[in-house]
Amino acid sequence: MYKAIRKRTFEILEPGHNGDLTSKIVDLFIMLLIVLNVVAVVFETVPEVQSRFGPYLHAFDLFSVGVFTVEYLLRIWSCTADEHYRHPVTGRLRFMVRPMVLIDLLAILPFYLPKLFPMDMREVRVLRLFRLLRIFKLGRYSTALQLLGRILYNKKEELAVGLVVMLILLVFASSSMYYVEREAQPEAFSSIPAAMWWSVVTLTTVGYGDVSPVTPLGKLLGAFVALIGVGTFALPTAILANGFMQEIDRRHKDCGQPRCPHCGGPIGRRKSDYKTYQYASKAS
Amino acid sequence: MYKAIRKRTFEILEPGHNGDLTSKIVDLFIMLLIVLNVVAVVFETVPEVQSRFGPYLHAFDLFSVGVFTVEYLLRIWSCTADEHYRHPVTGRLRFMVRPMVLIDLLAILPFYLPKLFPMDMREVRVLRLFRLLRIFKLGRYSTALQLLGRILYNKKEELAVGLVVMLILLVFASSSMYYVEREAQPEAFSSIPAAMWWSVVTLTTVGYGDVSPVTPLGKLLGAFVALIGVGTFALPTAILANGFMQEIDRRHKDCGQPRCPHCGGPIGRRKSDYKTYQYASKAS
Amino acid sequence: MYKAIRKRTFEILEPGHNGDLTSKIVDLFIMLLIVLNVVAVVFETVPEVQSRFGPYLHAFDLFSVGVFTVEYLLRIWSCTADEHYRHPVTGRLRFMVRPMVLIDLLAILPFYLPKLFPMDMREVRVLRLFRLLRIFKLGRYSTALQLLGRILYNKKEELAVGLVVMLILLVFASSSMYYVEREAQPEAFSSIPAAMWWSVVTLTTVGYGDVSPVTPLGKLLGAFVALIGVGTFALPTAILANGFMQEIDRRHKDCGQPRCPHCGGPIGRRKSDYKTYQYASKAS
Amino acid sequence: MYKAIRKRTFEILEPGHNGDLTSKIVDLFIMLLIVLNVVAVVFETVPEVQSRFGPYLHAFDLFSVGVFTVEYLLRIWSCTADEHYRHPVTGRLRFMVRPMVLIDLLAILPFYLPKLFPMDMREVRVLRLFRLLRIFKLGRYSTALQLLGRILYNKKEELAVGLVVMLILLVFASSSMYYVEREAQPEAFSSIPAAMWWSVVTLTTVGYGDVSPVTPLGKLLGAFVALIGVGTFALPTAILANGFMQEIDRRHKDCGQPRCPHCGGPIGRRKSDYKTYQYASKAS
Repeated sequence: MYKAIRKRTFEILEPGHNGDLTSKIVDLFIMLLIVLNVVAVVFETVPEVQSRFGPYLHAFDLFSVGVFTVEYLLRIWSCTADEHYRHPVTGRLRFMVRPMVLIDLLAILPFYLPKLFPMDMREVRVLRLFRLLRIFKLGRYSTALQLLGRILYNKKEELAVGLVVMLILLVFASSSMYYVEREAQPEAFSSIPAAMWWSVVTLTTVGYGDVSPVTPLGKLLGAFVALIGVGTFALPTAILANGFMQEIDRRHKDCGQPRCPHCGGPIGRRKSDYKTYQYASKAS
Repeated sequence: MYKAIRKRTFEILEPGHNGDLTSKIVDLFIMLLIVLNVVAVVFETVPEVQSRFGPYLHAFDLFSVGVFTVEYLLRIWSCTADEHYRHPVTGRLRFMVRPMVLIDLLAILPFYLPKLFPMDMREVRVLRLFRLLRIFKLGRYSTALQLLGRILYNKKEELAVGLVVMLILLVFASSSMYYVEREAQPEAFSSIPAAMWWSVVTLTTVGYGDVSPVTPLGKLLGAFVALIGVGTFALPTAILANGFMQEIDRRHKDCGQPRCPHCGGPIGRRKSDYKTYQYASKAS
Repeated sequence: MYKAIRKRTFEILEPGHNGDLTSKIVDLFIMLLIVLNVVAVVFETVPEVQSRFGPYLHAFDLFSVGVFTVEYLLRIWSCTADEHYRHPVTGRLRFMVRPMVLIDLLAILPFYLPKLFPMDMREVRVLRLFRLLRIFKLGRYSTALQLLGRILYNKKEELAVGLVVMLILLVFASSSMYYVEREAQPEAFSSIPAAMWWSVVTLTTVGYGDVSPVTPLGKLLGAFVALIGVGTFALPTAILANGFMQEIDRRHKDCGQPRCPHCGGPIGRRKSDYKTYQYASKAS
Repeated sequence: MYKAIRKRTFEILEPGHNGDLTSKIVDLFIMLLIVLNVVAVVFETVPEVQSRFGPYLHAFDLFSVGVFTVEYLLRIWSCTADEHYRHPVTGRLRFMVRPMVLIDLLAILPFYLPKLFPMDMREVRVLRLFRLLRIFKLGRYSTALQLLGRILYNKKEELAVGLVVMLILLVFASSSMYYVEREAQPEAFSSIPAAMWWSVVTLTTVGYGDVSPVTPLGKLLGAFVALIGVGTFALPTAILANGFMQEIDRRHKDCGQPRCPHCGGPIGRRKSDYKTYQYASKAS
């Protein structure tokens, strides 16, 4: 009986499979609470909202922390229902260091820490920012976040290569601009790290305009850096977009129909295509 | 006889098929009127144009509303010629709630509303903006608008994923920048929603320069956000471009020739390619 | 004899084929002259250059016009050597209206026009800008310009669709921003056409910062426009890039080896690939 | 014995193959030293760092130059162990002009030059910038830099075409803007080369905002240039991204499995795909 309740609790707390209505409802409730928490953290920084709805927002925060604490404790308690975490002590400890479970802890810790350790106002304020980490609790349910994680993992090599190229370009652009513009703008180009702010703003094409070369040589160099660099800095974008498309294609693969052996895309999505394929094959 | 006129009216008002010259001419006339209406709405806001051509523009608006009203009424009257909307009352009502027909109503409503309900000048002025909705009447004829609609529909999942990732990044960039720059720039970073303006301007690489980090830590964070975020914010662009290419390819499919089973593109567009294909097939 | 000279003149003036050294040298000379002309036009606007090298630049311009005039007259004289333009009068006239030959005329006309018709200084100055049209004479030799022309031609439908979508977005972004920001910034948003400057600067992500929304509602709308619009405005870029890649691939086709029937790319560029292909074919 | 030491020295200095632990450790040490050198050059320009850690940084520079000098001399001495550079004089000379070995020399030369030739402070300061060239010593070990080099080499034709198109657009945009805005902004648009700064900033979408058109005609032209040009200036980005993807794909080819004959990508990465491929082949 005790075991059955624990197992059911575990099932309900994990993302619900089709048909398990209770679990689905609990998932939806938790997700809604997370989203509302993020909205609350964002809008309570607006003075008008704070002065008018402050007490309600505080009550909502208390309520959220309560729910998330109960959720966390129930998870820890019921995890032994899973074969992998059977052992009441070591199993639970291994369960507690799983990334998603650590995030569950981080989501409630900012509330309890100031109660446990004396803190000044500044530290407490920074801690409130950490309430935003609750957004990562969505990772358990959100396919978007999981997708992003998988893309970053799959493309880690390519992204690393792109990053190295970008870093080298950044160092050279900043150093040469520092030597060229230092005398004309001793403030903005006081050092190479300071010049890096110009480089990043230029190479990402953000271009605030708070720093820009003023000497003819600086403008020549700046134009050169912009022309060369913009292409290089778009590499990570291209890698991410490519990875995204590949992942989306991979998603579509569970439809059972024959698939293109080259790109992994479904063959015969449109009937006419499939026929063409058969026709082309027979022709040989 | 009455039925024949009604049927012909319906045919003429619907986008004309090849060969139906009268319908084509009416289509072209309506399209021209829509485009001229948009041009008029845009340019009547220029004081010099208003003072010089004001009366003519007003007359043109009256004429347009008249034409569009007649068009709308004729559509409603003649729609019973279509099998789907046969019933004189319920059929017409079902026809009236079709998106394109609702747009036809919205295109003339801004003219009649102030006549029906008393309104102050401000409300009337905003209503005039709604005259721009006439542009969507083009959707009946414009393949470009239909194409865009289909792309957005086909890629809705991918776009939703991209949007979630962007929103999360936006919340984190804004929140951390708010905590870092708040003291140095209490005006521009007065709250997290205010900091979101900086985030959007930076992450889309627009970079007006009205708000930008000034503290060293803020610049470090800003550089980091720009480097990380620019790639992520380009995802929807990549999705749209990808969907656009796929739709364009799909368009080309009505040429009867064998098609590539992998990508849906036409095989043998160039003769040499087709030969190669046969050669490759025979070789097996 | 006369015919032979005329034929040889025509051959030499047309872009030279492999082996015809004289024609190649003449081509190179003309190309160099064109490039130097563009450089001269660009740099003679620098006051220091004008005051120091003015007379030399003027002499160089006279020399260039002389050469280009002789080239133009020789072309017209010798074109009857081509079968298509055999007739001494109608053939020559048909030759003269060919785009590349018209450009040859436009390249020298700015020099002769002020001699033929009295002009004030302002008009003469604008005419000097037209000397830059000489750059298009390069089109006869430059594969880059020919490539760009072919891409624009091949992708004209797609680009038109992209343009329509962009125009509609532009009209809506400008109109709504005009209604929202007009009161706060009566100068920058004085009319919808004025607001279009903001729209273009934002949607292309240039973002000078000379105009940007200041009201909260304007910022919300601006953020929305930036997020939505940036993706749409990148469509032409994607179309151009796609067309560019396709044309480059098509270029590589003259290598005689079997080619991929799907994408037109060369098969077997690397030996291992080719083997795989044969292996895959045999397996069937 | 002497030969064996020389051969072993050569092996150790060259990038280590799997299993040669000593060579790997030396590689890692040199790489770490290079990275630390770059970090030192960048941060010693910060006044606070210079005043606090100046002597240590100087000592570190002396140490680095020492190591790199010893490395360089050992390389020159031991290179005769390689069959290609067997000859003690001509072989060594041929070895010394290899790009990577020239970079090794350039990495230490900025230190020795002022000792050999008298120089004023300004020249010495510029020479210090050249210490950054040490970063290219990484090219011997870094696959990222080698990859970038190979992409630039493979795509040199396409990049050249893109560059020509960009240059022509740049000349036209700058010239027309110069003629239009010269009177309103005689400073920023004083000459066509000056106007090129605006063109580059606009066409790369950096958009600092230090120069932007102010006349209505200038804004119209600027909007036109931005709309047309942004797509063109993204071509090199697309070429680079395309080359990057191709190189990454090529990398994955050493896995021994059959490969797609069309795109060079691995077939059968997922088992289901491979089966489909066989099925499709058999069907013929």
